[in-house]
Amino acid sequence: MALFVQKYGGSSVADAACMRRVAQRIQDTRKAGNQVVVVVSAMGDTTDNLIGLARQVHPEPDEREMDSLLATGEMASSAILTMALHALGVKAISMTGQQAGIKVDGIHLKAKIQEINPRRIHHHLDQGCVVVVAGFQGMNSSEDIATLGRGGSDTTAVALAAALKADRCQILKDVDGVFTANPRVVPDARKLDEITYDEMLELASAGSEVLQSRAVEFAKNYGVVLEVMSSFEVKPGTLVREEVEEMEQVIIRGIAADKNQAKATLLGVPDTPGVAARIFKELAAANINVDMIVQNVSAAGITDVSFTVAKDDIAKTRRVIEPLVKEIRAAGLNFDPDIAKVSIVGVGMKSHSGVAYRMFDVLATRHINIEMISTSEIKISVVIRAGEADEAVRSLHGAFNLSVPPRKSPARRRPPARTKSRK
Amino acid sequence: MALFVQKYGGSSVADAACMRRVAQRIQDTRKAGNQVVVVVSAMGDTTDNLIGLARQVHPEPDEREMDSLLATGEMASSAILTMALHALGVKAISMTGQQAGIKVDGIHLKAKIQEINPRRIHHHLDQGCVVVVAGFQGMNSSEDIATLGRGGSDTTAVALAAALKADRCQILKDVDGVFTANPRVVPDARKLDEITYDEMLELASAGSEVLQSRAVEFAKNYGVVLEVMSSFEVKPGTLVREEVEEMEQVIIRGIAADKNQAKATLLGVPDTPGVAARIFKELAAANINVDMIVQNVSAAGITDVSFTVAKDDIAKTRRVIEPLVKEIRAAGLNFDPDIAKVSIVGVGMKSHSGVAYRMFDVLATRHINIEMISTSEIKISVVIRAGEADEAVRSLHGAFNLSVPPRKSPARRRPPARTKSRK
Repeated sequence: MALFVQKYGGSSVADAACMRRVAQRIQDTRKAGNQVVVVVSAMGDTTDNLIGLARQVHPEPDEREMDSLLATGEMASSAILTMALHALGVKAISMTGQQAGIKVDGIHLKAKIQEINPRRIHHHLDQGCVVVVAGFQGMNSSEDIATLGRGGSDTTAVALAAALKADRCQILKDVDGVFTANPRVVPDARKLDEITYDEMLELASAGSEVLQSRAVEFAKNYGVVLEVMSSFEVKPGTLVREEVEEMEQVIIRGIAADKNQAKATLLGVPDTPGVAARIFKELAAANINVDMIVQNVSAAGITDVSFTVAKDDIAKTRRVIEPLVKEIRAAGLNFDPDIAKVSIVGVGMKSHSGVAYRMFDVLATRHINIEMISTSEIKISVVIRAGEADEAVRSLHGAFNLSVPPRKSPARRRPPARTKSRK
Repeated sequence: MALFVQKYGGSSVADAACMRRVAQRIQDTRKAGNQVVVVVSAMGDTTDNLIGLARQVHPEPDEREMDSLLATGEMASSAILTMALHALGVKAISMTGQQAGIKVDGIHLKAKIQEINPRRIHHHLDQGCVVVVAGFQGMNSSEDIATLGRGGSDTTAVALAAALKADRCQILKDVDGVFTANPRVVPDARKLDEITYDEMLELASAGSEVLQSRAVEFAKNYGVVLEVMSSFEVKPGTLVREEVEEMEQVIIRGIAADKNQAKATLLGVPDTPGVAARIFKELAAANINVDMIVQNVSAAGITDVSFTVAKDDIAKTRRVIEPLVKEIRAAGLNFDPDIAKVSIVGVGMKSHSGVAYRMFDVLATRHINIEMISTSEIKISVVIRAGEADEAVRSLHGAFNLSVPPRKSPARRRPPARTKSRK
């Protein structure tokens, strides 16, 4: 008997009809002889509505109170889903984060899971129940409710899977899995059967919204095998796991585009030691996340420094940097929100050279100008004009032949003694 | 510095604007130098909406899950009200029933408060906070959330006032207090300054909806002084407390009508011992609350037995009683939903005779026929036609002169050494 943790997002449980469908899906998993722990998000727009209500009484609501308020969404959702399971004759019980033994650290609105005591969950699983846990929340050391921030329910699911030593953590969504590119942009984008944690992490930070980085990191750290799959249809999704020898042999796993970034440029910065450190120290202190940084030293001893930040952070970045412009005697500061970051990701890059060249060549052929470049061991990102992003993604998808399923490694066809040895 | 527990019902906190007004009211109480613990109901129709949602997925939702679901309404409400207090610069913190230390027994949907550990509330009061507690809920010994049933937030408020030894428990409502009769029926009904626990209990069970019997009983048992008052305007309400010598000298405190009752009649019941016991044992076993019972033994050795039940219980009563009709060889069973119970209540009855006579005489003068009568030490109830109820109430209100404020007892004018001695 396998133990599955299944996570259903807000759009999968938006109303009573959705709840019944999800309950049916859980019953199928149960009937197949598996134990099931379900993690559920708040129904549909509940969280947004609660935030809206809070803002009506206070422009900047207290974070502890916001957590108490928002957590009710997932609590209600878990009770309703449990009732829907009962209606199908499935034994089930709902649990708040606290009842599920989820302890978090004290930072409200972005708490981190510290420890899970799965005693109560085990007890009810042993009694044959499906356990439906309210996602996104836990209790801190002051016995207050704290929520986990964006994508928090995914993290709850992965953490529970780790604590329960579940066989798999399934993230059920309104998409069929992880694709080689966004299918709305690339019609022949292909659903991946498998992807490594590292590739998934790079895709997530490159703009893919399928999974939150935090949940993937957690899964990687605890060796939890994730499966991203459809909540509407029963069919295999995409497995996210450690790289294994028998995995498909590919150089590029997928392509992502991120249009939520803006480019900030400090003009005419004197090229003296410590200037860059000064700038990015201030940004870090203000909790502004900087993604890419480019600096070219000119002959005249002055330089332009460009970096990208989230579009939402433009105003804050301006507040932080403008006082510095004078101080470091720079010529000025400008923001360009009209950019996109396009990234290609794949572990195969590690052992293949010339990937960057091919990427740049494809874009050059299309007359797409590259403004910034950054690379990691398994990723190449370029910043281009926002209006050219879709064309860039389609061209790269075609050039790297991503719509064609890759050859399986010979090792996979007949893996006699090797199936359990993972790298 | 006095400590007040204030309870605000759902219609007082129906939306953001109401929340702001309630916050203002709490701030005024705080500014007057008092400590305040607030108990709050779910906002407006929240509870009904949650029940509706639950029914969409299950015709008879599990009670534990229903409790988890419903409790979220009060949790959300307490967080929002706390934010509204913050917006006015009032230090405040919200608490779930559990955080407030409210322990209940294990019966879901109608749990009873067993114990309150006010450690955390005291801690925050000492720090100068207003503590906003989610009403209607507590934690049972299985660490599950259980709710207190109808009027549960009133009970939470009274229980907290008892545990905290508060100076007063104020129930803020959309009415100004307890009236001599329903002002919608009797235009010159008068707001009472004071009423005894026992009178309030009789009025509640006689159909007055101002306070739930359970909260009043709790207040009586723990000597908590209640004040029913307007949540819209700042003015004195009605004090509910132990009878004291200096209280207003009245025979009749108030009149209530209850149109939610139906009369069941078992016709032609053989007048043999044990028959009545048999009937009411079955009704009790089915949890059907019987209010009045009348039986007249006829000369022929057969009798009609009539009793009143809530209109909602008619179908259930029929299911329970119909099999008995044959068994006890009765002639038949009929239900009459078209009745009303009209009651006059007052502690003064204990020492005044002739009250029942005056009541019956007033009704007879109006040609209102009395079908059933029941009395307690401080109450007389009659069952009449539903259509005559309003006229009966108005006539009795006039005949007993209830719109005229009573003389105060001389003892009250100058109560030198007696103010603290309560009977």
